[in-house]
Amino acid sequence: MNRILDTISSPSDLKSLNDRELKALAGEIREKIISTTSKTGGHVASSLGAVEIILAVHSLIDSPTDRFVFDVGHQAYAHKIITGRLDAFDTLRTYGGISGFPKPAESPHDVHPSGHASDSLSIALGLAKARELRNSDEKIVALIGDASLSGGMAFEALNTIGQLQLPIVIILNDNEMSISRNVGALVRHLGAVRSSARYRQARDSSQEKLEESGSIGKAFVAFGRSAKDSIKQFFVPESMLFEQLGILCTPPIDGHDITALKDILRTALDADGPVLMHVVTKKGAGYAPAEDDPVRFHGVGPFNESTGASIKKSASPTYTDIFGKALVREARVDEHIVAITAGMRTGTGVEEFGREFPDRLIDVGIAEENAVGMAAGLALGGLKPVVAVYSTFLQRAFDQMVVDCALSNSNVVFAIDRAGLVGNDGPTHHGVFDMAYCRMIPNMRVLAPSDEEELVHALHTALRIGGPVAVRYPRGCGAGMAAPQSGSMLPEGVSRTLREGSDVALLGFGDRVGAALVAADLLEQRGIDARVVDMRWVKPLDAEAIAEAAQTRLILTIENGVIAGGAGEAVLMTCAQQGFTTPVVTLGIPDEFVAHGSTDKLLNDLGLDGVGICSAVIEALGA
Amino acid sequence: MNRILDTISSPSDLKSLNDRELKALAGEIREKIISTTSKTGGHVASSLGAVEIILAVHSLIDSPTDRFVFDVGHQAYAHKIITGRLDAFDTLRTYGGISGFPKPAESPHDVHPSGHASDSLSIALGLAKARELRNSDEKIVALIGDASLSGGMAFEALNTIGQLQLPIVIILNDNEMSISRNVGALVRHLGAVRSSARYRQARDSSQEKLEESGSIGKAFVAFGRSAKDSIKQFFVPESMLFEQLGILCTPPIDGHDITALKDILRTALDADGPVLMHVVTKKGAGYAPAEDDPVRFHGVGPFNESTGASIKKSASPTYTDIFGKALVREARVDEHIVAITAGMRTGTGVEEFGREFPDRLIDVGIAEENAVGMAAGLALGGLKPVVAVYSTFLQRAFDQMVVDCALSNSNVVFAIDRAGLVGNDGPTHHGVFDMAYCRMIPNMRVLAPSDEEELVHALHTALRIGGPVAVRYPRGCGAGMAAPQSGSMLPEGVSRTLREGSDVALLGFGDRVGAALVAADLLEQRGIDARVVDMRWVKPLDAEAIAEAAQTRLILTIENGVIAGGAGEAVLMTCAQQGFTTPVVTLGIPDEFVAHGSTDKLLNDLGLDGVGICSAVIEALGA
Repeated sequence: MNRILDTISSPSDLKSLNDRELKALAGEIREKIISTTSKTGGHVASSLGAVEIILAVHSLIDSPTDRFVFDVGHQAYAHKIITGRLDAFDTLRTYGGISGFPKPAESPHDVHPSGHASDSLSIALGLAKARELRNSDEKIVALIGDASLSGGMAFEALNTIGQLQLPIVIILNDNEMSISRNVGALVRHLGAVRSSARYRQARDSSQEKLEESGSIGKAFVAFGRSAKDSIKQFFVPESMLFEQLGILCTPPIDGHDITALKDILRTALDADGPVLMHVVTKKGAGYAPAEDDPVRFHGVGPFNESTGASIKKSASPTYTDIFGKALVREARVDEHIVAITAGMRTGTGVEEFGREFPDRLIDVGIAEENAVGMAAGLALGGLKPVVAVYSTFLQRAFDQMVVDCALSNSNVVFAIDRAGLVGNDGPTHHGVFDMAYCRMIPNMRVLAPSDEEELVHALHTALRIGGPVAVRYPRGCGAGMAAPQSGSMLPEGVSRTLREGSDVALLGFGDRVGAALVAADLLEQRGIDARVVDMRWVKPLDAEAIAEAAQTRLILTIENGVIAGGAGEAVLMTCAQQGFTTPVVTLGIPDEFVAHGSTDKLLNDLGLDGVGICSAVIEALGA
Repeated sequence: MNRILDTISSPSDLKSLNDRELKALAGEIREKIISTTSKTGGHVASSLGAVEIILAVHSLIDSPTDRFVFDVGHQAYAHKIITGRLDAFDTLRTYGGISGFPKPAESPHDVHPSGHASDSLSIALGLAKARELRNSDEKIVALIGDASLSGGMAFEALNTIGQLQLPIVIILNDNEMSISRNVGALVRHLGAVRSSARYRQARDSSQEKLEESGSIGKAFVAFGRSAKDSIKQFFVPESMLFEQLGILCTPPIDGHDITALKDILRTALDADGPVLMHVVTKKGAGYAPAEDDPVRFHGVGPFNESTGASIKKSASPTYTDIFGKALVREARVDEHIVAITAGMRTGTGVEEFGREFPDRLIDVGIAEENAVGMAAGLALGGLKPVVAVYSTFLQRAFDQMVVDCALSNSNVVFAIDRAGLVGNDGPTHHGVFDMAYCRMIPNMRVLAPSDEEELVHALHTALRIGGPVAVRYPRGCGAGMAAPQSGSMLPEGVSRTLREGSDVALLGFGDRVGAALVAADLLEQRGIDARVVDMRWVKPLDAEAIAEAAQTRLILTIENGVIAGGAGEAVLMTCAQQGFTTPVVTLGIPDEFVAHGSTDKLLNDLGLDGVGICSAVIEALGA
């Protein structure tokens, strides 16, 4: 079978294809995405929805001279496949293989390492301003999903884009569905625009969608930017919101119609100011299981290609599941508990909470700053908010944690999921900074439960102890133990010793406690008697346990987070303050960005598994 | 003289006053603000502009049951004065006196510790959701300036406010002037709304502004929220932007007309959903020097009450001045240099740069996330962006520093002003976290110049060394030394020893190096021979210098920043890694929020001045 796809080694090869061939190519790309991700897992639904957009853009611009900026990068698979990474695509998200997100080190066609939502417009704006100052004329296109638009950073960029009026083509991929159900007034506004446009379309007797799209493009061409108001008259109501920020906005365009997309994009690329193309797509387009369940297919593990059924590796509940169930139980007995998610109902495990307490779950969309600020307001209003959020995304709200929550010592619980290395999503998603950035905040307490049971107790404790409290737990499954039906109060700043030992003390934090236990067994085989302590609290630290540990020959701290400013340094400081001179070795994430790959492999590389800890002890004792 | 003001001990006392008396009271409050701030300094212009708004609100709500939420809090002086703090007002911003910002510990009328822009809407939203869940009916009013609206956090909150439709009165204090010249498409939009309203006002033959405002209020009452569209027809064009987010928006209201404000506010408080009152005020209203120069009177030191002339304490240039001049000189020889400010041209010292290179200065308004994201884009576009920003506000962009700048190892310089304790603005403005949050970011280098000359060299170095680099320097003046006309490259990770000594080693960072030198003199008098090292680099640290220091009896690190995760811990870690057991004492900001007061007094309290360092050495050697 002769695939067009095999003739595409760079996006410039698209220029010789006609629209019919591009359409066929889109089908081939979809097949490739589905067959690969069925084995590797990945962001399937978004990527399937954006195939035609990506082909249309690359057929009209000259990347990498022209710049095609992705947002988050969930949508970029087609882009990867046509920019020289077709063969490598089978290695998607695997250790040593290609990243699931745009990554400049991989290809000059990847402008920036995207992975956090809402940053594409700022990047594009910076590129456009640089172009102006350099007097060059490359095209700049940014592709952003409707869910990412709710992030304040995107609005900040729109505000400056509207002011500076530099030519940028913003393609709003409006797929009527973000990761969770979409929320927010902006999304409702876009919905109204779509409905209105559909109404007109239905009313108009024009039959040929292609023709109609063509005519929109022609009108666009004919009037140009200078006749903005005339265009408005043709297509009112389009989005007045963007228009009022000074950004020309098209009517909704069918995002799976390559001809229509190219037609309008061609005009947009010629505009002398910013243009927002409102493109409507279907998430999961072209693959029935993903179209039917786009939430599951947002980010999915391996699945059966023909049925779409997930191929589960483990039957154990994840930490996320356990958190979600424990939160529901806590909320049944304490009506003050409310939960906040930033567009991640499923990911953070609060869906069940939302079903049982619909009024008490607030989904603010991708908007971590408001999630944390609103939590502060809820706490001031007498409630006990729980912000359920991924570690890496909470970085967006560091300031709000400090100023809005900690300074007023408000009762806000941060349920920090995906803490530590997350595996295949790689450096933009690793949650390795949270212990360090939480620990430095006055009034903040930080719990790092080491297993499923501990998580239940940690949440229980965080909800009762008062003030801002962070509970951080990793991605995926724990040891598979049954979580208790109810939590107990953990005494503040008190660790638990899991294994006595006199030669060395292994002080573990969170999920590294299990690895410390493995290491202790390995050390025992070598005649080294290791104490293992589950520190439980990153802050306040258990100074007594550290004093006891200092009676051994060596203290080793192990954490799934950055060493710089992390829990190990805190232990070191406690030793220094108490005048102990016992050697302290701090294991954790070194001062580098960690690539993607399975979590086990990454932890092994970094010496943070049982074997690595054992080796570190032997090396330190030998020295 | 019988002042009405002396009869006001709580806001409930306003209820018995008629509008004429409220107007007279506004005048008395202005006198009080001017006479006090002429001695203490403070946020004069914003506070003068908001007097009538505050009186109108407090005369119609029942604080603290009802909640009046301030944004930033620059505008809150009248609120402080009428909520029982008239007598204490003379202690404004002084050590032990009342804070320059709303502070719950000071008064139940202060809802949250505001100080960072754009958070009021999230706080109000949280309060409104809590009210719904508690089934109570208190009123919630948020006062936000137009400049704060450009912050993404505010937009995120508007997006959720528009969705949830909970009753909140948002008073947009549109003073046509933020701290710097106002920027952004949103501000232009507001300007268009104002102009259009003025045009109508001029065209209408109605003479009495009071009457007209009254009639607007009446129309508002008559139609209510359910007749939104009818109201629109009366007052088009008002802000379609807010309307499209589902927030009813009034036409512009004269913010110095108490009768008009009360009239419309009364209706807004009765609405069953969110209402935005577009209130137009004059910054500095009622005080000619502030009206004439609102930028200087935004935040001003002591001034001559009758002329408004600043009473300068020092003729030395500030670090900000020195940075600004050095940046201009660098930019003259390197056309790749561009500067970005987030609404702080004057505060960050980039005004002169902007005058000489208007195309190369980008003011994004209060929008730190976009400032840093756009910087990443500029760097990707081949330029050398310098983000000039206060330490405390850069906290808003921590994630962007990590993901958008550091992960791609982009050439972005962070010129971090107001690093360390800032004095009278207090805990919301102290820049004490930056060394800790910068140090944990891979690829990031961190310079802490110890004096004016070092700042010039540090900037020079940061612009040439490549990758993301932070240069942090304090508020105010240094030693008064003449800064060099050109900078030199500082070798990476190399400190400079300022004084040899064999008993103890004082490792100073940034402005604490001067204090270490003072301490060394004091120690010499006691026969203790202290080495003093200007570490220069927080990251990478000078491991050799630390090894040399470890040959003394005691290492003391001194930094103007948090101890947790800070530079001292990094030194401790370096010692541990090299196997040194020399005692290390880390001086810095302990795990608490530091109150306001003069910087000298605060540093003295914390033992971070020469005397404190000397004492710490003696105590440690004695132990």
